Amino acid sequence: MNRGGGKTGAQVLVEAVAAGGVEVCFANPGTTEMPLVAALDAVPAVRPVLGLFEGVCTGAADGYARIAGKPAMTLLHLGPGFANGAANLHNARRAHSPILNVVGDHASWHLPYDAPLTSDIVSLATPVSGWVGTVGSADDMSRTTAEALTAARTPPGHGATLIVPVDFQQEAVTETHAGASPRPAPQPAPVGADVVERLAKRLSGGSRTVFLLGAQALTEPGQRAAERIAAVAGATLYSETFPATAERGGGLPGLDRLPYFPETAIKALAGARTVVLAGALEPVSYFGYEGIPSLLAPPGSVEVLAAPGDDVVQALEDLADALGAPVLTHGRAAAPDGAHLPEGPLTPGTVGRIVTALLPEGAIVSVEGGTCGYPFFTASADALRHTALTNTGGAIGQGLPAALGAAIAAPERQVIALQSDGSAQYTIQALWTMAREQTSVITLIASNRKYSILQTELTRHGASLAGPASTALTSLDDPALNWMGLAHGYGVPAERAETGGELARALRRALAAGGPRLIEMAL
Amino acid sequence: MNRGGGKTGAQVLVEAVAAGGVEVCFANPGTTEMPLVAALDAVPAVRPVLGLFEGVCTGAADGYARIAGKPAMTLLHLGPGFANGAANLHNARRAHSPILNVVGDHASWHLPYDAPLTSDIVSLATPVSGWVGTVGSADDMSRTTAEALTAARTPPGHGATLIVPVDFQQEAVTETHAGASPRPAPQPAPVGADVVERLAKRLSGGSRTVFLLGAQALTEPGQRAAERIAAVAGATLYSETFPATAERGGGLPGLDRLPYFPETAIKALAGARTVVLAGALEPVSYFGYEGIPSLLAPPGSVEVLAAPGDDVVQALEDLADALGAPVLTHGRAAAPDGAHLPEGPLTPGTVGRIVTALLPEGAIVSVEGGTCGYPFFTASADALRHTALTNTGGAIGQGLPAALGAAIAAPERQVIALQSDGSAQYTIQALWTMAREQTSVITLIASNRKYSILQTELTRHGASLAGPASTALTSLDDPALNWMGLAHGYGVPAERAETGGELARALRRALAAGGPRLIEMAL
Repeated sequence: MNRGGGKTGAQVLVEAVAAGGVEVCFANPGTTEMPLVAALDAVPAVRPVLGLFEGVCTGAADGYARIAGKPAMTLLHLGPGFANGAANLHNARRAHSPILNVVGDHASWHLPYDAPLTSDIVSLATPVSGWVGTVGSADDMSRTTAEALTAARTPPGHGATLIVPVDFQQEAVTETHAGASPRPAPQPAPVGADVVERLAKRLSGGSRTVFLLGAQALTEPGQRAAERIAAVAGATLYSETFPATAERGGGLPGLDRLPYFPETAIKALAGARTVVLAGALEPVSYFGYEGIPSLLAPPGSVEVLAAPGDDVVQALEDLADALGAPVLTHGRAAAPDGAHLPEGPLTPGTVGRIVTALLPEGAIVSVEGGTCGYPFFTASADALRHTALTNTGGAIGQGLPAALGAAIAAPERQVIALQSDGSAQYTIQALWTMAREQTSVITLIASNRKYSILQTELTRHGASLAGPASTALTSLDDPALNWMGLAHGYGVPAERAETGGELARALRRALAAGGPRLIEMAL
Repeated sequence: MNRGGGKTGAQVLVEAVAAGGVEVCFANPGTTEMPLVAALDAVPAVRPVLGLFEGVCTGAADGYARIAGKPAMTLLHLGPGFANGAANLHNARRAHSPILNVVGDHASWHLPYDAPLTSDIVSLATPVSGWVGTVGSADDMSRTTAEALTAARTPPGHGATLIVPVDFQQEAVTETHAGASPRPAPQPAPVGADVVERLAKRLSGGSRTVFLLGAQALTEPGQRAAERIAAVAGATLYSETFPATAERGGGLPGLDRLPYFPETAIKALAGARTVVLAGALEPVSYFGYEGIPSLLAPPGSVEVLAAPGDDVVQALEDLADALGAPVLTHGRAAAPDGAHLPEGPLTPGTVGRIVTALLPEGAIVSVEGGTCGYPFFTASADALRHTALTNTGGAIGQGLPAALGAAIAAPERQVIALQSDGSAQYTIQALWTMAREQTSVITLIASNRKYSILQTELTRHGASLAGPASTALTSLDDPALNWMGLAHGYGVPAERAETGGELARALRRALAAGGPRLIEMAL
């Protein structure tokens, strides 16, 4: 493979990535990535994790980045392989997750011939990447890889897509260009004292204030600082609707998320004279509905304390200090009552209570889908301390891969994927990698055999559910998915629960067993 | 939904599509497509078929177009939904399949607010579409839909992607703009008499000639005309390596495909003074390998009789006439011998012979993956008349959806998906739609528990297989996929065959049973 002596371009790339602190590569490679695959043999610092479908790899890199706070690498095959991973890169972009996508391309001299697998990778990558670049020679490998990694780690975090023609992977790199040149990770920008002072003055005026917390404001220190501000300024605290990560439970403030539907979100913000953005973006309706404004906060109310890439925790602490807010002391929160759980037929509400009660300390909960997601958030302020991940960009098929990536990032923590059945199907192959890597992920499938959100939206659009087309396109019951079969197919032990008692027993068994497990919750 | 009286934009779109002859919509819709879903209730001429993942929908539309010779509609949700379908649209583009992709977008007035699901759909769509357009108003719906449909049907066939903001789907259309204005499908361009004459003169000179047949040249009339030419001009006939559709067996010429690896393809063409392209593109190496040219035909040898969008059948017949080639008569071909089939452990070779022997007249065989694909092509010249579909663009995950679409296009024909295990995983959800629609698709999984092609390519790149990373990234045996479980999970009856005898019995049972079925072939 290396025909000129010394290191190949592929080795230089993998070494540069490793020198930059990347430890995992979620990969679904093809022919044009084979030198990189061989280089992963030569550089054991980067652990390869195989996905059977690219959306598993990109979603796992997103979940990994959210928990590890640093990028994983993905390895994807040409334009179509990248496209298969694009939906979860869209979510990662909205989560501000740092990810380094490495995409092989045809040999540079072969590209002009428009071979069958040739396509415009840049056009496919640009909408879901914060940085896109193409390696121009083997000697360019180290520099461009470092640039991509820096772009990925520039706060608040970006998807950087590095396109690497296969000839430059194979060629020998001149010795002077073969060294890795890691750069320090860029730091969040500090928020100016003037911004803090102006806000402190405005809040002292006793105006009705809502804080919308996002990004790092949803860490424990961020929430503690926000809690101090709320206590002295009488402000209301909300989490952004779909946080990338949110620390919850264990005595943290029981933050509600800003509601999903615009009518309720507008109502929640209606009385505010000031809506302070602390790591969150200005709230916008998820979809546009006729007669309802796109912007949810009252006109003129929005003040930015910190953008997602700023040092929002420090800014909140500075603001709390400027307001003279005392530091609060917190006793140990009461553990939830696991002894008196609902026994009857499962409902989304009882699922939320049971999962809340049995959640181990330090768990990670990857939530996708509304059916059980909202009831879980309602209940889980009372759970032990845990980290919640949500679907930030609305591209479905994010929950299982993100759970997988989180488990790779934190093998000592229990991961729960609380997952709707319809959305699980987009990246169902994630189950296989969970089994292969023996990750501690318990997948709870909310099995209601329909696209529930679409039936709601049809009603909102004024359509009845009576028509055959709209019934056919929103129902999943003909045939019903057999979740035991699917889990078995991918090597994940599974059982089915129809009552609260069955769910609690199944969940306890799964927690005790360790390793991957799937529980179908029949709703 | 319709707040102005009269028809909505969505109804006008679906009526325009139906008036243009579109009968099927492969759909995975979301919130921004709900008015179109409701409109499908109002216009029963377009049959909705639900896929659990967008790649199933686009691959099915490709398979449908190849067999029906006309476009299906797909219905996809915003940028991420489109991206999930892009890989199979890449294949469809290389197959020249006419497809009309309809993608909902946010309300036009909501787009500037960059809501979570907003993305640059045009950038995602352009690399895999021959035409991309956005509807500019409800009154623009009929005209733009007709334009998109015309673009899709312009020979040789294109993917046309029509982006439709949801407000224009909902709004009432002014009556003067509400009518469908179907245009006749554009016809293939005739090949000029001068081209035919020039080639006839060149071939009469007794030069060593190879014909490379593609597109419509692989229909029965195309092959019969090519056979006449070959008989008088001593020419060799090849099929392009990855035809969209090829009629085979039942006494048609036993066309070899131009070999996949460039060394062998170059050898096959080496002696030719003239390489005539008849509906095929100039042959190019699939991947670029150091020291091997990208162009496979000898320099200066290539002559174009007909491009893929030209009337290649007429051109071949004209050329045969110009050469004075007699019309050949063909007796009925002998039926293959189904009585003496290999009984022992399965190999790719015995799979090819057994499938060939048992293939019913008029079957459609969707082939994806090299393991059993090449041996089947070697054997199947002796099969009864059938149509083969191959993966034209190399984006894997095409075989099962294409089989599904073919079965929807031709419910009276038996469809076989001859499918490698690794590539089946990218769009495994196709099994569910096969069960839901009770299609006659028998899926034969070549289960060798590895990415065999990648292990070959690693060796070509000079890497050994010994490393842990390259082993991990090319093996599928830890855990082995349980195909019985997966098929059961999606509602498809399944069995497993380890010997030739078991495969023959299982295939006979499946053919007799009708409906979907999966057979794991343990290799």
